[in-house]
Amino acid sequence: MARAVVLLSGGLDSATCLAIARAEGFEAHALAVRYGQRHEHELRAAERLCRRWDVPLRVVSADLRAIGGSALTDAIDVPKDQPIGPGIPVTYVPARNTVLLALALGAAEVLGAQDIFLGVNAIDYSGYPDCRPAFVEAFERLANLATAAAIEGRARYRIRAPLLQLSKAEIIRAGIRLAVPYELTHSCYDPDPEGRACGRCDSCRLRRQGFLDAGAPDPTRYIGGT
Amino acid sequence: MARAVVLLSGGLDSATCLAIARAEGFEAHALAVRYGQRHEHELRAAERLCRRWDVPLRVVSADLRAIGGSALTDAIDVPKDQPIGPGIPVTYVPARNTVLLALALGAAEVLGAQDIFLGVNAIDYSGYPDCRPAFVEAFERLANLATAAAIEGRARYRIRAPLLQLSKAEIIRAGIRLAVPYELTHSCYDPDPEGRACGRCDSCRLRRQGFLDAGAPDPTRYIGGT
Repeated sequence: MARAVVLLSGGLDSATCLAIARAEGFEAHALAVRYGQRHEHELRAAERLCRRWDVPLRVVSADLRAIGGSALTDAIDVPKDQPIGPGIPVTYVPARNTVLLALALGAAEVLGAQDIFLGVNAIDYSGYPDCRPAFVEAFERLANLATAAAIEGRARYRIRAPLLQLSKAEIIRAGIRLAVPYELTHSCYDPDPEGRACGRCDSCRLRRQGFLDAGAPDPTRYIGGT
Repeated sequence: MARAVVLLSGGLDSATCLAIARAEGFEAHALAVRYGQRHEHELRAAERLCRRWDVPLRVVSADLRAIGGSALTDAIDVPKDQPIGPGIPVTYVPARNTVLLALALGAAEVLGAQDIFLGVNAIDYSGYPDCRPAFVEAFERLANLATAAAIEGRARYRIRAPLLQLSKAEIIRAGIRLAVPYELTHSCYDPDPEGRACGRCDSCRLRRQGFLDAGAPDPTRYIGGT
């Protein structure tokens, strides 16, 4: 059974990605990164999912707060009720996906995995540069030069981004077919202490609209119950 | 004055790299990474250098111990008195330079720097895959796709590896011309608690031979004083 490393934030997209890796027959190894998020609800969600599916989970700390520059790691307010327009929002974390993939590459090398799954999405996303196909391809190229296997001529890393060209509704429909327990996932940038979603940040609004468009019940617990 | 991010381990190579960035006229910002090294003497050396040169230093934690697979982060003995041959030694840290450059890219983005200096060297090195020119070029390509500036069409990152084609002796001669205080640097993989060098690991042996070949006095404090 071939191994795969799956980057798991605990959100809807990465949970679906993990389900896809499993459905393709991989022995999935999840990697969650504590990068200085403002809250730990995502990591709790990753732990719940891995327990449910009996998937080994590594949690690596990489403190991007020391770098700053984002509403997700810095003392900058998360925007609410803002139109999702062009331009890069303040929730962009500088070089986050590059850091996440670099850590996943290290884990893949140690585990002998050649496939790294990343739940990025270039359709219903927030305009992040490191969620684009060209970025994913450039990282794959780098991976095949960066590792011990590269020197020995046997590096065949694949960066798998199966959600890249899917809308949020398509992701949710794919996940429902694979029985993803979306009630265990967490997407909100700014939850209350109990982990209930604000319903108003970009991430909540994309998620909520996704369930609506997919014609599926939204299992998210929102603040105020709406 | 253009800014540059300089990855600084506290070792001989990265100290020389920092001196080169300063000599080129950059406002240098040093980035040290606490990646789960077996000792903190390197980081102390980075702090001493930055104090001496009045360079701002960021220290970011990225705990590669959770990934493992290396004598530098794991419970694997550092080899001593071994010939430095072909093949990749156990001191190789999976994906380390990819992680370091990813963090530096985040810092560069926040600081508005376009140049990232990395003290890798493809001549007198230990056979690490992520110290090769092709790796450096692939990361530069990735950097120019991964960042907010890339979306806005103004990404011009340069990964600068000025030591890439220099022998250890050439690096030391360059550093001496730039008045690098090598007595403040630390290279040993396995020092004693006072930070004295073992003199027997790959890193010590490359360093010691470098000073010999450069015809320069070796200021390193060795265990036993030899």
